[in-house]
Amino acid sequence: MLSPTPRTRHRRMKDNGRADRADLTAVLAAGLVAHLGVLVDGHPMVVPTVYGFDEQRIFLHGSVASRSLTVKNEVCVTVTVLDGLILARSVFEHGINYRSAMIYGVPVPVTDPDDLLYGLRLLTEHVAPGQWDYARPPSTKELAATTLLAVPLDEASVKISDGPPDDGDGPDAALGLWAGRLPVAATWGTPVADPLLPAGIEPPPHISNRTGRPITG
Amino acid sequence: MLSPTPRTRHRRMKDNGRADRADLTAVLAAGLVAHLGVLVDGHPMVVPTVYGFDEQRIFLHGSVASRSLTVKNEVCVTVTVLDGLILARSVFEHGINYRSAMIYGVPVPVTDPDDLLYGLRLLTEHVAPGQWDYARPPSTKELAATTLLAVPLDEASVKISDGPPDDGDGPDAALGLWAGRLPVAATWGTPVADPLLPAGIEPPPHISNRTGRPITG
Repeated sequence: MLSPTPRTRHRRMKDNGRADRADLTAVLAAGLVAHLGVLVDGHPMVVPTVYGFDEQRIFLHGSVASRSLTVKNEVCVTVTVLDGLILARSVFEHGINYRSAMIYGVPVPVTDPDDLLYGLRLLTEHVAPGQWDYARPPSTKELAATTLLAVPLDEASVKISDGPPDDGDGPDAALGLWAGRLPVAATWGTPVADPLLPAGIEPPPHISNRTGRPITG
Repeated sequence: MLSPTPRTRHRRMKDNGRADRADLTAVLAAGLVAHLGVLVDGHPMVVPTVYGFDEQRIFLHGSVASRSLTVKNEVCVTVTVLDGLILARSVFEHGINYRSAMIYGVPVPVTDPDDLLYGLRLLTEHVAPGQWDYARPPSTKELAATTLLAVPLDEASVKISDGPPDDGDGPDAALGLWAGRLPVAATWGTPVADPLLPAGIEPPPHISNRTGRPITG
């Protein structure tokens, strides 16, 4: 699609400059799991998957979408970060505060060995920074067994809902009810060692230092 | 569809008894946001939305999917709860621990006034138990402006990944690297009052008591 699409609240990232792209990458940086929507036998299927990204592409593990890849269909990749609840005076004005990015594009299987390593590194480092250099890198055989998809970050929309409920200056304010936000605080917990791990091997600092820190930016 | 579908790892809830249904409702109870996959102009679109559910149906706010509702297309509703990271000795064995439910069905707009109130109550109480009776209920005008969808819980699949990494008894164990899980702890934060709220109105206990508690079951 070379022209803006009819989908609402939609932006072509190439056309809309730095502000939109910064919003997009901020949401992608804050999220951990994407929901990939693919067409399977004419019906939408939505599967959760981890991802990595750079300025041009979002990378996804492709096994989840393998059946849809026989056709070069457009997919939708949605990353949502839940920030909290909006608790209003009226049921009608309740909602959630969240940041969400929706990316539309035709996924490209990553087959070039260097590009595959590059994408897998982005994916690993997005989820667990420091882990790519700590863990054993993929072997040639493992790389051959890995399906990685890249979706260009060319067409995307970003929605951000924050702030208080909407009925603070309407008639419902007179009800005297409490209203506001209830934030969600998602943090990393304490590392749990593999039961098969020999005694004396401690988690590396890039893992243990995360405990108590927010998982979203 | 009256016969089992060809989609893999798929279960017809009516046929597979209580264990599968209990798995499904446990995931739905633990999650807060669903990702709704709908077909728009032949392409999948994935939108985040809150939901409520009972034993038969999942209820979703319909405005997000309004354009797709001109056709009675099947949708996919996916609820994912992230439990943590699987940190293995090899990059290849990394992954996430999660619980996920995928529900397939044709959404039915809820138009009966009693059923609409019933579904909205489930939705509100799932996100904020106690809030339906605390807040002002929807007016007739508000109900008329509300689009609620119900998707039957008849065809669904549940995937649960937990436990340690998979390479603890392979050759990579000899690398001497730490491996295990890094849990995600999502808790409710401290309520933030609407800036327009008059002084002296405190959050009700059903809200303030949530602070520090896990958001997922």
